[in-house]
Amino acid sequence: MPTDTPNLILVRHGQSQWNLENRFTGWIDVPLTEQGVAEAHSAGRQIREAGIEFDVAWTSVLKRAIHTLWIILDELDAPWLPVHRDWRLNERHYGGLQGLNKAETAAIHGDDQVHIWRRSYDIPPPLLEDDHPDHPRLDRRYARVPPDQLPAAESLKLTLERVLPCWDSEIAPALQSGQRLLIAAHGNSIRAIVKHLESISDDEIPNLNIPTGMPLAYTLDANLQVVDRRYLAGEQAAAEAAAAVAAQGRAT
Amino acid sequence: MPTDTPNLILVRHGQSQWNLENRFTGWIDVPLTEQGVAEAHSAGRQIREAGIEFDVAWTSVLKRAIHTLWIILDELDAPWLPVHRDWRLNERHYGGLQGLNKAETAAIHGDDQVHIWRRSYDIPPPLLEDDHPDHPRLDRRYARVPPDQLPAAESLKLTLERVLPCWDSEIAPALQSGQRLLIAAHGNSIRAIVKHLESISDDEIPNLNIPTGMPLAYTLDANLQVVDRRYLAGEQAAAEAAAAVAAQGRAT
Repeated sequence: MPTDTPNLILVRHGQSQWNLENRFTGWIDVPLTEQGVAEAHSAGRQIREAGIEFDVAWTSVLKRAIHTLWIILDELDAPWLPVHRDWRLNERHYGGLQGLNKAETAAIHGDDQVHIWRRSYDIPPPLLEDDHPDHPRLDRRYARVPPDQLPAAESLKLTLERVLPCWDSEIAPALQSGQRLLIAAHGNSIRAIVKHLESISDDEIPNLNIPTGMPLAYTLDANLQVVDRRYLAGEQAAAEAAAAVAAQGRAT
Repeated sequence: MPTDTPNLILVRHGQSQWNLENRFTGWIDVPLTEQGVAEAHSAGRQIREAGIEFDVAWTSVLKRAIHTLWIILDELDAPWLPVHRDWRLNERHYGGLQGLNKAETAAIHGDDQVHIWRRSYDIPPPLLEDDHPDHPRLDRRYARVPPDQLPAAESLKLTLERVLPCWDSEIAPALQSGQRLLIAAHGNSIRAIVKHLESISDDEIPNLNIPTGMPLAYTLDANLQVVDRRYLAGEQAAAEAAAAVAAQGRAT
């Protein structure tokens, strides 16, 4: 493998139904919209046209990321690729805000408080009650996760703290063994990986917006240091898409 | 878990493009037809309406089985289910016959010979040449399989002999640990499992036709002995569908 070939591609899922409705989504398992499906196809075509191949894929346990991955695998004619689903690649858990739209949230908590929750690094939103029907302890997809590891609300910092063990124990060893990886995940789980790879500061990371459906290609050396990093669609297209994400009520 | 709840469901993929064209398919990675997609949705609905849940799924590395599984997972609202893709669950490898239709095969080899290949237990079809572009050694999805394990043509007996190690080393231990399994696979890899579970003789197994898109539900005890076995659609519907399969030029 030439060292200038990307060995890690990150893709944020396309638009979901609650992105469209501008509601806090978090761990609620909402589907892609038609536009989200189209974004996933576009991501797959970009990867195919760049001639990039993979040995294994990772995704979360939320269908908007899984369906994005499936669509990409179909575009690559590689549905046979091994896929690991890991809850630790889920979106940031938005706690008691999940399901609320921006106006509802502002009416309850005030604009300033909402801004803090959305843009601070380490302030989590209100906790979901233990007996709330959306609590992950009641969802059988998390039945094998120790209950004390399951969040009821996460800051970006808490999100990073559960993504990185997945990186360290699963993803980094796969890369170091020479495998080429595709990861289809979420705005904040991808932020966690990008922060780690590029040593972005706690202050800066809330300002980094990951555009949807735009494959971000890393070439990493044997020590997983970044040799190259580029959006396959080009930096300008990615910057414009990221600005559009930032201009939304919420990016998550 | 009550002992009368099925803990193993087998589903043969729906109609593929080459089923429709009546061509020997084997390991050629052809897609489902529209009818095949509809059969997969029907299989998923049957499982959902029976209230059956799973802990893990297995499939082959061929897209007609993988897409059947994906459609079923969507019908169950469980795309998050862990999925193992294993080449040993592939269809029987049809060697030098792959791609030929029944008329072409009969013209080259004669009707009697074709009948022997299709209905004998242990006579493999002609080998695919080592440098044939369809040889699995040239397909990167099999890159991690030891080359001497990759077939160039298989009898039903040879198919069983590579399915059963997957059963013994992966699937049986999962069942014995209490997991409930969904397997989406192929006519002959499912025959291998059914032969093993029901102790069907070598003489009888070529006459067993597995209908497409019809979930076959087993309740197995702790020693993996069959407590119950039923098609979710009912025995009559399954028998009629199996007869239709048998009446096709080929069943594989």
